[in-house]
Amino acid sequence: MTDKANTVRDLGERGLIRWFQDLITQFDEALLSGMEDAVAIPWDGNALVVNCDMLVASTDVLPGMTPAEIGWKAGVMGLSDLAAKGATPLGMIVSLGLPKDTEANFAAALVGGLNCVIREHGTYYLGGDTNQCLELVIDCTAFGRVPQDKLIRRRGASPEDIIAVTGDFGYTGALFESVLNDRKKPAKVVEEIREKALHPRARIPEGNALAKTSAASAAIDSSDGLAWSLHEIAAASHVGFHIDNLPIPSICSKFAAAHDLDVVDFALYGGEEFELVVTIPPDRWSKALQVVNKVGGNLIPIGKIVEAPEKVLLKDGKEISIEPRGYEHFLE
Amino acid sequence: MTDKANTVRDLGERGLIRWFQDLITQFDEALLSGMEDAVAIPWDGNALVVNCDMLVASTDVLPGMTPAEIGWKAGVMGLSDLAAKGATPLGMIVSLGLPKDTEANFAAALVGGLNCVIREHGTYYLGGDTNQCLELVIDCTAFGRVPQDKLIRRRGASPEDIIAVTGDFGYTGALFESVLNDRKKPAKVVEEIREKALHPRARIPEGNALAKTSAASAAIDSSDGLAWSLHEIAAASHVGFHIDNLPIPSICSKFAAAHDLDVVDFALYGGEEFELVVTIPPDRWSKALQVVNKVGGNLIPIGKIVEAPEKVLLKDGKEISIEPRGYEHFLE
Repeated sequence: MTDKANTVRDLGERGLIRWFQDLITQFDEALLSGMEDAVAIPWDGNALVVNCDMLVASTDVLPGMTPAEIGWKAGVMGLSDLAAKGATPLGMIVSLGLPKDTEANFAAALVGGLNCVIREHGTYYLGGDTNQCLELVIDCTAFGRVPQDKLIRRRGASPEDIIAVTGDFGYTGALFESVLNDRKKPAKVVEEIREKALHPRARIPEGNALAKTSAASAAIDSSDGLAWSLHEIAAASHVGFHIDNLPIPSICSKFAAAHDLDVVDFALYGGEEFELVVTIPPDRWSKALQVVNKVGGNLIPIGKIVEAPEKVLLKDGKEISIEPRGYEHFLE
Repeated sequence: MTDKANTVRDLGERGLIRWFQDLITQFDEALLSGMEDAVAIPWDGNALVVNCDMLVASTDVLPGMTPAEIGWKAGVMGLSDLAAKGATPLGMIVSLGLPKDTEANFAAALVGGLNCVIREHGTYYLGGDTNQCLELVIDCTAFGRVPQDKLIRRRGASPEDIIAVTGDFGYTGALFESVLNDRKKPAKVVEEIREKALHPRARIPEGNALAKTSAASAAIDSSDGLAWSLHEIAAASHVGFHIDNLPIPSICSKFAAAHDLDVVDFALYGGEEFELVVTIPPDRWSKALQVVNKVGGNLIPIGKIVEAPEKVLLKDGKEISIEPRGYEHFLE
């Protein structure tokens, strides 16, 4: 560490995480590297996969979110990384930090929202811890199981692999722009964007289907933004990528056009979306599409893996660089 | 809920937890009731045991604690409930909430302290999540394994069972009194109390040994205080208890005498100690003692289980009621 890094703000979230890795004793039997979003350890031929994600009111809650929507978001944050590993959730526990003047009805709606989203994803809210805190904090820990040889990692992508996603991108970026910069029109468009952005799904069935058939060579969720997720797969797999088909919903394009903004920015850098970003070797593509469709999901090809270092978006015949940025704590 | 309960403060932590239980869909296969301190679910004849405990600076950190001591406490909080269930830890993940002006060296010492305490308990700090938060929050989630038929619960105690603990009580109550009410003498005594109170152990080997031999009929850790733990076992097992031998270290008695305070209060109601409180059927006592001693632990008999509803301490020939109180969030 240099003398300059006096506070965690100087290091940034990712600098901090890399630094923490050096302070922690490595477990030789761990099945995922320390830079992955979940941990996995062997258990009788299976992998026990565990993931925690903390939602903090001052950084993660948009003005106007209802307690049920906050609970929904916290639950999906916890489950989404299990989806990316191909794990089936076995349950979730939740540590709550509540200011002591929290209205009892707010707390009930929050816990109800958490129970709802956890049940929607086929698993159970098993318990947790309740604490007094200066601000609302929700830490969701999901744990699940996948056969050890089916665990999907960030590394594993090879040139020519098809890059695919499980849904559209842009809702969250557009919603943040709308709320934080008071852009409320067109009202119907904004309302629909809000609804979509605040009720994401963790792509558990899709991840399970891809794991079961060994169809994906790598996967990550997109909670830090599509651009960031692509860069993470590229870094872990030592490859580059060409993106030529960003799946942007027309409603986000309408919103962007109404305010003279670039919808591509929402899709690439918005963050807090929970689609999976997966890579599929060409000879497994039709199988992958089939099994994901069978569980009611989508698999949209958006580009392909190339040799490092290229990381570009092909748009209107031009190559635009995709930057390694997304939401990062401490820097905002 | 009545109209009176407008905030979580009106409900109190335990009222809130009971209320949350009604809002959560029960999982029929869960191996522990919702009021236990950990969750457990079946996994191929074993139980996967998971526990989260959140440490919050404004309520859980005493003035003067070093970052390494804060990390130590958070880690033990997470591990201790696994010990009470007889589970062997497989790993721990940690969600950190840090104010953005946290000194980098503080964060490093905290993570180093966490790594140290986790390794001291024979397991690994596998990863987690890092967030910006208005105050320091550390949520430790420990997960472990125990054969399903060896899992120890709070219920199961019967009249005549011997009540035993794995160590002395009183250090934490005395330390809180010293720090919060500025009682700094005798200096050497206070220093020793501080050292003991801030470096507790989660009684993993003791819990494992008792589980393996099916020697304990019930167990709980004492993080909410000895009195509260006894009441919890009594409530879950529908029994009462007679305590006649409180294991109070002489150093705590010295401190109490110097300030004309009752050391029994420290031992019963201090809280934040991490000894196990177990019940042992008389015919298994010698075996229990043997296996706990073999792993380097103590098992101190402090009384016995009786028919409900008696909950008393026998002291100087008199029966004193042991009240169901301990530390509770939101009420202080």
